[in-house]
Amino acid sequence: MSYDPSNIFAKILRGEIPAHKVYEDDVALVMMDIFPQSRGHVLVVPKTASRNLLDADPAALSAAIPLVQKVAKAVKQATRADGIRVAQFNEAPAGQTVFHLHFHIIPVYEGVEIVAHGGGKADDAELAALAKDIAAAL
Amino acid sequence: MSYDPSNIFAKILRGEIPAHKVYEDDVALVMMDIFPQSRGHVLVVPKTASRNLLDADPAALSAAIPLVQKVAKAVKQATRADGIRVAQFNEAPAGQTVFHLHFHIIPVYEGVEIVAHGGGKADDAELAALAKDIAAAL
Repeated sequence: MSYDPSNIFAKILRGEIPAHKVYEDDVALVMMDIFPQSRGHVLVVPKTASRNLLDADPAALSAAIPLVQKVAKAVKQATRADGIRVAQFNEAPAGQTVFHLHFHIIPVYEGVEIVAHGGGKADDAELAALAKDIAAAL
Repeated sequence: MSYDPSNIFAKILRGEIPAHKVYEDDVALVMMDIFPQSRGHVLVVPKTASRNLLDADPAALSAAIPLVQKVAKAVKQATRADGIRVAQFNEAPAGQTVFHLHFHIIPVYEGVEIVAHGGGKADDAELAALAKDIAAAL
């Protein structure tokens, strides 16, 4: 299993495709998932090229995880979620659909069922507003 | 939300309760989940006391994530799973049941449904055999 630089997240990282960006630094790009599993579902996409966790540079993982934490806290604060799921999928049978390493940060709201990924594309205006709120909480 | 040192993982870390250990070092304890969501479900439990990701020391996270990666690779090799899910839950509405930071490493097998956590306690002999196989792959 090798890395294919034509994946959609690599295109977003290169600026070839737009995204609802929340934050960006040398380590990672943070953006809204456009097929959210819940309101405020965010992705942390490390910039180092790797297919997933299995082939990642351990140093890149160590650099990214404090940002995953910061974003999880900001998402919880901005969305007032009751809990946060962090998920990272490796290979298609595990649910991976884009083959560039990324961490899902999924807010959970008491009494609201988490929908399957790809349940539907979110409204762009809503995503833009959420991105702004989460960025403000970072 | 504060850390309660009487949680079951803290007791396991202190050696007060047995576990199906896979590996242990200064950073974390790796053990079989006794209520596995799939065959070979492993937990990586960092030794630093924190309730979950939200209140963790970022340096402890950076130290733990390369081990999460190593264990994910070893689980995949030992179980011949088709994919690996890494999950980390924060607060009860998100699925957290033990309030000491831990990462779930869940093997996924093509065509086999992932069962809900707490679907049933696994057989001890099977867990011991899996722990041995995964430790050998580490």
